[in-house]
Amino acid sequence: MNEKNKNLVVRAVSAFSLLPVVVFLLYMGGLYTALLLGVASAICVSEYYLITQKELSPAAWVGILLAGALPLLALRHPERTGEGAFWVTAFFLIFAFTFHLIRGPLQEAPTRVAHLVMGFLYGSVGLTAMCALRQMPEGLMWVIAALVITWANDTAAYFAGRFLGRHKLYPAVSPNKTWEGFAGGLVGSVVGMFIARAGFFPLLTVTDCVFLGICGGILGPIGDLCESMLKRAYGVKDSGRAMPGHGGILDRIDALVFNAPLVFVYVTFLRGVLP
Amino acid sequence: MNEKNKNLVVRAVSAFSLLPVVVFLLYMGGLYTALLLGVASAICVSEYYLITQKELSPAAWVGILLAGALPLLALRHPERTGEGAFWVTAFFLIFAFTFHLIRGPLQEAPTRVAHLVMGFLYGSVGLTAMCALRQMPEGLMWVIAALVITWANDTAAYFAGRFLGRHKLYPAVSPNKTWEGFAGGLVGSVVGMFIARAGFFPLLTVTDCVFLGICGGILGPIGDLCESMLKRAYGVKDSGRAMPGHGGILDRIDALVFNAPLVFVYVTFLRGVLP
Repeated sequence: MNEKNKNLVVRAVSAFSLLPVVVFLLYMGGLYTALLLGVASAICVSEYYLITQKELSPAAWVGILLAGALPLLALRHPERTGEGAFWVTAFFLIFAFTFHLIRGPLQEAPTRVAHLVMGFLYGSVGLTAMCALRQMPEGLMWVIAALVITWANDTAAYFAGRFLGRHKLYPAVSPNKTWEGFAGGLVGSVVGMFIARAGFFPLLTVTDCVFLGICGGILGPIGDLCESMLKRAYGVKDSGRAMPGHGGILDRIDALVFNAPLVFVYVTFLRGVLP
Repeated sequence: MNEKNKNLVVRAVSAFSLLPVVVFLLYMGGLYTALLLGVASAICVSEYYLITQKELSPAAWVGILLAGALPLLALRHPERTGEGAFWVTAFFLIFAFTFHLIRGPLQEAPTRVAHLVMGFLYGSVGLTAMCALRQMPEGLMWVIAALVITWANDTAAYFAGRFLGRHKLYPAVSPNKTWEGFAGGLVGSVVGMFIARAGFFPLLTVTDCVFLGICGGILGPIGDLCESMLKRAYGVKDSGRAMPGHGGILDRIDALVFNAPLVFVYVTFLRGVLP
């Protein structure tokens, strides 16, 4: 078996063993979902720290543990998840600053603190939003909606790019992406939402499908490119090794990181599903 | 008039003209306080950006404007201020990442994004906490408590350091601070809280005075040192020129930045003044 086929097998085995667990825990909701997303959030934050800092300092471990706890804040009042999360972030900032005040090096301390805070938010915000969505009335449906606008985009972009792709989108960051793929992905997100509406989620309005489809169809690919940019800036190929054959978790959810807060804020503050 | 005396006059005039306005707007509460603290928050964030980035990019201006709006979130449900603030922060992160994805430079983009997010939080979190405190029942008293643990600390540390100071605290960051001053300041914070309790704030329990006095008496000086470290790392003397003779606002409120969230979290989540 050559290297390429071996990698394909590793990839398939890891997908087939992980996916049912993830689907089951998302389906169960409550603490099951919160623990799944908490662990994923902690791993994502650790991946960001390893990319930008090369090592995990004690302050980074505190950030990783707190990031793992953020999704748990969604358990009681999902629509108020940010209430505690903001102050947890504020205290982590104070802690990180204090840590590097004592440990130094003074010259680099502010930038290290900035990466500690940024990585904490970047790695946890999408999964915390997913957890908050899941705990809402009709939560499973909104989680699926967030996944649909992300995955339908990915899939449609792949085929549109493969068959129609002519004009490179941003070769310095992601050499294979084309504008044709981007446009196809955008159509895919909107169509995906309408299929979800017709198939199993009649609560979705036409406005929901169009608004979330378009916004998610734009934000998702941007999230993907931003994560590629992060890795390129630090000369890293994969964000981590959490899933054999798939790279890190951040690689898998880079589009979701931007789309999940979009769906959460839309559902909570704009559409007003909850008071 | 020599340079030193001139500076003293400028300083006195700016203090005597600004202080009554600040006290009046804090006393009035509601929108008056929110606008005062919103403007201060925007200025603090701009000071952080100018220190770390030397210039204000369009993304920095978006951060400054959003930071100015954060205290306004405290107007309706002060105890839930973080609810919106967390998602505003999340979207600012997404925006900042997208901005530098498009504008580059790719190599430095992640660090610039990290400073945009960090500065947004660092400059706004303390003043947003102050605004949320002010809008609570007995809010003016809690704002005064936050100021007392900060200012009593400062004043007591100055005199204890001047008359007893022998052992330098952290000369690389702040050459004039001594351990004796630190200890004196800590006593000052606790004593200040008991004076407030006896004089005009009978709602304070002994636990409040001891807990907030000790925690604030430690966190405040740390906040002060962290801000000095920030300026030293970038070779800057003052954080800005908002108050003639006083340097920037960040210089004035560096201890409050750490103490205000402490008091807010204590009042809201630990002491349970609000549901």
